[in-house]
Amino acid sequence: MKYQKVLIAGEWREPQNPAGHFNAVNPANKQALPENYPVCGEKDTLEVIKAGKEAAVELRNVSKDMLARFLELFADKIEAHADELVETAHIETALPAEPRLKDVELPRTTGQLREAARVAREMSWCHATIDSAVNIRSMMGPLDGPVSIFGPNNFPFAFNSVSGGDFAAAVAAGNPVIAKANTGHPGTTMILARLAFEAVRETGLPSSTVQMIYRTPPELGFRLVSDPDIGASAFTGTKSAGLKLKEAADRAGKPIYLEMSSVNPVFILPGAVEERSSEIAAELFDSCAMGAGQFCTNPGLIIVQKGEASEQFISDLAELFSSSPPGTLLSLNGAYDIMEAVRILITAGAHLLTGGNKVESESCMSENTLLRVDGKTFIKHPRKLQTEAFGTASLIVVANDIREMKEIASVMEGNLTGTIYSHRQGSDDEAYNILEPELRARVGRLLNDKTPTGVAVVSAMNHGGPYPATGHPGFTAVGLPASMIRFAALYCYDNVRPHRLPVELRDKNPTGKMWRMIDGEWTKKDI
Amino acid sequence: MKYQKVLIAGEWREPQNPAGHFNAVNPANKQALPENYPVCGEKDTLEVIKAGKEAAVELRNVSKDMLARFLELFADKIEAHADELVETAHIETALPAEPRLKDVELPRTTGQLREAARVAREMSWCHATIDSAVNIRSMMGPLDGPVSIFGPNNFPFAFNSVSGGDFAAAVAAGNPVIAKANTGHPGTTMILARLAFEAVRETGLPSSTVQMIYRTPPELGFRLVSDPDIGASAFTGTKSAGLKLKEAADRAGKPIYLEMSSVNPVFILPGAVEERSSEIAAELFDSCAMGAGQFCTNPGLIIVQKGEASEQFISDLAELFSSSPPGTLLSLNGAYDIMEAVRILITAGAHLLTGGNKVESESCMSENTLLRVDGKTFIKHPRKLQTEAFGTASLIVVANDIREMKEIASVMEGNLTGTIYSHRQGSDDEAYNILEPELRARVGRLLNDKTPTGVAVVSAMNHGGPYPATGHPGFTAVGLPASMIRFAALYCYDNVRPHRLPVELRDKNPTGKMWRMIDGEWTKKDI
Repeated sequence: MKYQKVLIAGEWREPQNPAGHFNAVNPANKQALPENYPVCGEKDTLEVIKAGKEAAVELRNVSKDMLARFLELFADKIEAHADELVETAHIETALPAEPRLKDVELPRTTGQLREAARVAREMSWCHATIDSAVNIRSMMGPLDGPVSIFGPNNFPFAFNSVSGGDFAAAVAAGNPVIAKANTGHPGTTMILARLAFEAVRETGLPSSTVQMIYRTPPELGFRLVSDPDIGASAFTGTKSAGLKLKEAADRAGKPIYLEMSSVNPVFILPGAVEERSSEIAAELFDSCAMGAGQFCTNPGLIIVQKGEASEQFISDLAELFSSSPPGTLLSLNGAYDIMEAVRILITAGAHLLTGGNKVESESCMSENTLLRVDGKTFIKHPRKLQTEAFGTASLIVVANDIREMKEIASVMEGNLTGTIYSHRQGSDDEAYNILEPELRARVGRLLNDKTPTGVAVVSAMNHGGPYPATGHPGFTAVGLPASMIRFAALYCYDNVRPHRLPVELRDKNPTGKMWRMIDGEWTKKDI
Repeated sequence: MKYQKVLIAGEWREPQNPAGHFNAVNPANKQALPENYPVCGEKDTLEVIKAGKEAAVELRNVSKDMLARFLELFADKIEAHADELVETAHIETALPAEPRLKDVELPRTTGQLREAARVAREMSWCHATIDSAVNIRSMMGPLDGPVSIFGPNNFPFAFNSVSGGDFAAAVAAGNPVIAKANTGHPGTTMILARLAFEAVRETGLPSSTVQMIYRTPPELGFRLVSDPDIGASAFTGTKSAGLKLKEAADRAGKPIYLEMSSVNPVFILPGAVEERSSEIAAELFDSCAMGAGQFCTNPGLIIVQKGEASEQFISDLAELFSSSPPGTLLSLNGAYDIMEAVRILITAGAHLLTGGNKVESESCMSENTLLRVDGKTFIKHPRKLQTEAFGTASLIVVANDIREMKEIASVMEGNLTGTIYSHRQGSDDEAYNILEPELRARVGRLLNDKTPTGVAVVSAMNHGGPYPATGHPGFTAVGLPASMIRFAALYCYDNVRPHRLPVELRDKNPTGKMWRMIDGEWTKKDI
């Protein structure tokens, strides 16, 4: 059998002893694509780790400027090959070529890479801290090994293991990357790895700074997050896969950053329903249906209070769900997984308002699905009724009053986002004050009067949240420079002679523009 | 049986269904002290967690100023009761009353509490980040549950679970604390808890802001780090206990910060040995013998290159070890544990230069012990030869040359500190450049020409390091404000109405002095 090549130790090469193979599938017609991608065997996995470790050692002597030039050159190459990338990603994911892939996701991806370059060059991200009286200095610096990145299926560019936010953050922090291509879009990932590797070569970085393999058997996936030579790892995907990787990494004492699942509750207070029910229903439906509902921040749970206005709102929203055509899902399993989640929700007491079936179609689809449950039942079965359905499938919870809304928030698991809609003139403010503290503690990003989809790439973004949305409540996967801190260790220098210090910690500010905390004050000055 | 009381849910009370009892022992005479301390049963453990969670919810509405006043008042009370504290700690630990407990550790403890108060009041620690164009704002804030703290045996004040660095950091970040008293000094901890609780009452904080229990059976210890209502936990102690707690916490997705073990390698380059052998031997011995060698940063591994000067150095150091009286250890087990570690070192190829036996004495003691092994053997058995002996017991490794020194560094586990002594006029600079990158990546704090004991409480300190010195390489247990970040979650506010924002994120700087990152620049200005 002829396999697609893997990128290991600075070479595109045939897989050695592959553990199998797989083909990508075009979700628009459910047809397997012709290329055979190898399932990585043990020999290749061990080599990729070894080469990654060597690259980590070499990268310690590479300037931040060289890292930045690599990131920028890579971004340029992505733009120069936009057509090829968009076409391949469209075939592998069925995501619309335009505007989604070409005009939204691709520019976002190159934007992230260039922002990472800027941040790496500017150096402030490392939180250089200097206590001059005792001559103790510290900063965040690269890990002692490569970062393994497991990308998700829903963003073939912006969260790709070889071009996405984790990749940009890991490289900008000075680490080599081992990219594990998502099985949904191996061809897209191969092109990105080709461009990244060209940029590695042209910039003169260590040749194993970027490596890429495809699927692995589970035990080798565990190896990629737990080997002594690994620095850390990042995973975006399902909770079941994420928790298994977490267990392997935890046992080895290796940091792992996970973005696993989130139902992103949206609470709509009574005043807001009275004031602008149909407006909210429309924007909420758009948010639920965006990307066929396959967004991490998709609103899977909508909480209202009982009453006539809410019944009208529910009816309007159900009408939008039922009258709109379903989107194409990312994979053959998508519809099955959604149906399974819906089954669990129904078993726990929810009932269908609309949808609930697969769509018999040439492409991968399931009906837009809206369910309903009362607050008391939700509070009784909070785990099951927070089952994530990764698609346009949401559960409406009807609470008796604001106390019950608060109780619903109090039994919620950790989520990426939580939203509260309230009356514009303040008639919901008292209810807000009751609800907010409970919700606040359980979500990474709290929104007002705005849908949670659309994750702005800005420094104050938190695309993270309490477990099990992620594995640690203190870190974000989006937003530079904060996302880089995940792939760094704290290095302190005590009485180290001046010429031996990294440039970030010397008396003279290395760029004249870098922020450093000197004797308790942030400053751009020299010492 | 009459038990000492526990502090649960705002009350000093009798233990309910204790799982047993224990007595502290005076290490100076090996006599058990009369007080019976309860081993905490399930009922008390569950109540302490429940009350802690309730306090966490209440604390969300408490001002930073009130937290600061509590910390300051507690520090005042510690000073007012210094004699009682010093006397009790001296009896329970045999640490010298003066200068150690009274003049060094107690002022350090109150200093940490007051510094934590200052940092809490100043608010800059929370890294408030505001992107004004998109109105997204984020900051670090308190966890959704109490912090369980397991203090070590070797600092009855400065690392005590109810007055030490973890306590100060957790409270300053806005969290209640569940203190698990170290079994070595329950009486000291009880006094500290009494004073802390008085300060809680007088400041008006929620009454379960500080709770304190003694020993627990293992399964209830696991519960304290893994219960859904726990926010996070911190542990300082042995690797074996730490790893078990880590496993329980990891499985539940709860953050745990561990400071477990470290042999703190000291590399002495040839030029330094030629230049100032006896000076280095003297300061190194002082560092090894400080606190009877029972410091986390005790130099357990000393690496030199073969040669005549090194032989003289080794001989001088052995003479200091053998001619100095051993200190009193903290516990009955101390000498046994040291002997067991020495046995492992010898089995792996080390041989004794001096010491190696328990001391038959009224008090808990073991001989000052120095061992020696060659570099090749160390590289062959790196795990066993990094066994920590928690006392004045160090292993000298004699390397052939700088390449072998580098290889020794490359097989080292994560450590809190790593030290390099080099020639003052630069003759070791080439060797330093070969060695440093390997050592740098494996330690939290890198020192030049200075012993690692003595952990300055300054903002640039890193009292942390790669696994297994700790559980995560990005965090420090000492040094404010960095140590507070462990007990915080990242909270983002997206389009949240101005009056609903926490004061830290409003347009107006809440103190006029708080540092905030606004649109990419650190500033004290309003928006």
